[in-house]
Amino acid sequence: MTLREQLQHKIDFKTKPTGSLGQLEDIAMQIGLIQNTLSPKISRPTMLVFAADHGLAEEKISPYPKDVTWQMAMNFSAGGAAINVFCKQNNIELKVIDAGVDYDFPANGGIINAKIAKGTRNMLKEPAMSSEECELAMQKGAEFVQKEAENGCNTIAFGEMGIGNTSSSALLMSKFTGINIEECTGKGAGMNSTALDHKTKVLKEVFEKYNPQSPIESLATFGGLEIAMMVGAILEAKKQNMIILIDGFIATAAALTAFHFNPLIRENTQFCHQSDEKGHIKMLEYLNANAILKLGMRLGEGTGAALALPIIQSAVNFLNEMASFEDAGVDNKD
Amino acid sequence: MTLREQLQHKIDFKTKPTGSLGQLEDIAMQIGLIQNTLSPKISRPTMLVFAADHGLAEEKISPYPKDVTWQMAMNFSAGGAAINVFCKQNNIELKVIDAGVDYDFPANGGIINAKIAKGTRNMLKEPAMSSEECELAMQKGAEFVQKEAENGCNTIAFGEMGIGNTSSSALLMSKFTGINIEECTGKGAGMNSTALDHKTKVLKEVFEKYNPQSPIESLATFGGLEIAMMVGAILEAKKQNMIILIDGFIATAAALTAFHFNPLIRENTQFCHQSDEKGHIKMLEYLNANAILKLGMRLGEGTGAALALPIIQSAVNFLNEMASFEDAGVDNKD
Repeated sequence: MTLREQLQHKIDFKTKPTGSLGQLEDIAMQIGLIQNTLSPKISRPTMLVFAADHGLAEEKISPYPKDVTWQMAMNFSAGGAAINVFCKQNNIELKVIDAGVDYDFPANGGIINAKIAKGTRNMLKEPAMSSEECELAMQKGAEFVQKEAENGCNTIAFGEMGIGNTSSSALLMSKFTGINIEECTGKGAGMNSTALDHKTKVLKEVFEKYNPQSPIESLATFGGLEIAMMVGAILEAKKQNMIILIDGFIATAAALTAFHFNPLIRENTQFCHQSDEKGHIKMLEYLNANAILKLGMRLGEGTGAALALPIIQSAVNFLNEMASFEDAGVDNKD
Repeated sequence: MTLREQLQHKIDFKTKPTGSLGQLEDIAMQIGLIQNTLSPKISRPTMLVFAADHGLAEEKISPYPKDVTWQMAMNFSAGGAAINVFCKQNNIELKVIDAGVDYDFPANGGIINAKIAKGTRNMLKEPAMSSEECELAMQKGAEFVQKEAENGCNTIAFGEMGIGNTSSSALLMSKFTGINIEECTGKGAGMNSTALDHKTKVLKEVFEKYNPQSPIESLATFGGLEIAMMVGAILEAKKQNMIILIDGFIATAAALTAFHFNPLIRENTQFCHQSDEKGHIKMLEYLNANAILKLGMRLGEGTGAALALPIIQSAVNFLNEMASFEDAGVDNKD
């Protein structure tokens, strides 16, 4: 029997009707295949939250002032944000990384410095990043993941903070899926419909201004420093054969970009939450993914991934801990 | 300000965009209102699993032999079932109650004896229970909940095991919602379409044979002993002002029945998992409920409720632990 067949047999002979644990069975299968074992394990789950600023924020594509990026990063380091609460509850180690915030954080304040630049450039005028900046961000992201792998982490989640980053994500989505930019553009963390019309107009102009060819050129043109760092991190997490937990719209845009560098990342990714952001469901469909949670959130930070971890743990636990029909002396179906 | 307004204010001034925690915000609001506080708390979450046999199982309305009821109850008491794994993971106290299994369990084997009868009668021939049996089952269910409340439990979940109990649930659903019995009848824990046709035919015949008037008469006619015990338990949990966690199709049928005794139970109920069982989504719509999880499961036992507890805890935690914009020095929307 192949490992897939052995896993299916183990799942099917647990004391429950065939298939009755639904999506948990798919998760258990995937994690067994990733770890090449009938008894997988989640070790030292870790959340890396990357923060960066976006030059395009000058064009008022978010209802929040740009300062909220650094203020929220400080809030993460002080423990007051949603992602802090959920990581604490679910025993996820949280690290906050400055990928490119336009602010000088105090040293030793708990925010890890990996600043590539003080934010990206305004894409209405020039590409967001140079290819050197983009590659450097990806490399930094990979290094963070390497370090976690060395520390025994085999399950890694990514979150983000960056006023304006749904715009980058919509542009990357449109580029990689071929879906119209209008359909990729949503209200982000919350805006009215006049503001959405303006955002859509700006993004359409940006999208039409460039014609990047390769994944790296697309990422440099439309991305953000936090997104580029996430892309590098996802690619490295695949190399390290980790379970990769993807959060909402922005993290999925990073996964979609990473997928165009290496489609095999899909073997290791769990999509954790289907966001309320308009384009997210289509991006998930493109990646042939059914998110674990559908809680109507639109917050980012990695919150969907942090909330999904107990469900993923349950999938691993039923595979390891439930009795089989034979063990328990329970009759199977007629 | 009313408590509702105060809770909404507290939720809205957390460091996140308004409404961005989606369903978690609704859960936090509901639990705050139940407990009449801005700082709710989940104490000693407990799962009561009621097991019973069904006379209608003689008519082959399940692909599993009737013996699976007692065998699975033994499996619960030995710790080998899915519900054991998920309760252990999420620190939920699990109690297994024999409401009416057709089997003599060993004394001191961990299964609590509340046997009303050795299963219900075959509804094709006579009502499932006498009204005395039904009332006794409800009363026993209430007593179990009372005891948990005295022990400091404020969050109670209900699960069930009983070969044939999707049939009772479909009949109760049809009775209380007015939806055709055909649309209420699904594949249960798993059957092919020939077997489903047979089940539907049997249930149609049962449904047309009786015309019960009151909720108690409907429950006695179509219910099961585990379902009646759950109905009594839910009504008592409302009296005790607990958070009531409702699992899948069968537990929702019990909640629907309890709702017809006392519609105010709805204030305290959280519907935890939208099951793959055909009628479940319509029952949830009738109760104006949006389930927390949608994992495509169809297992029962209380598994959906056990899996949802961490999400409910997250709702309580963000309300209690997140910083406000003011606390954190974060700018709110322009």
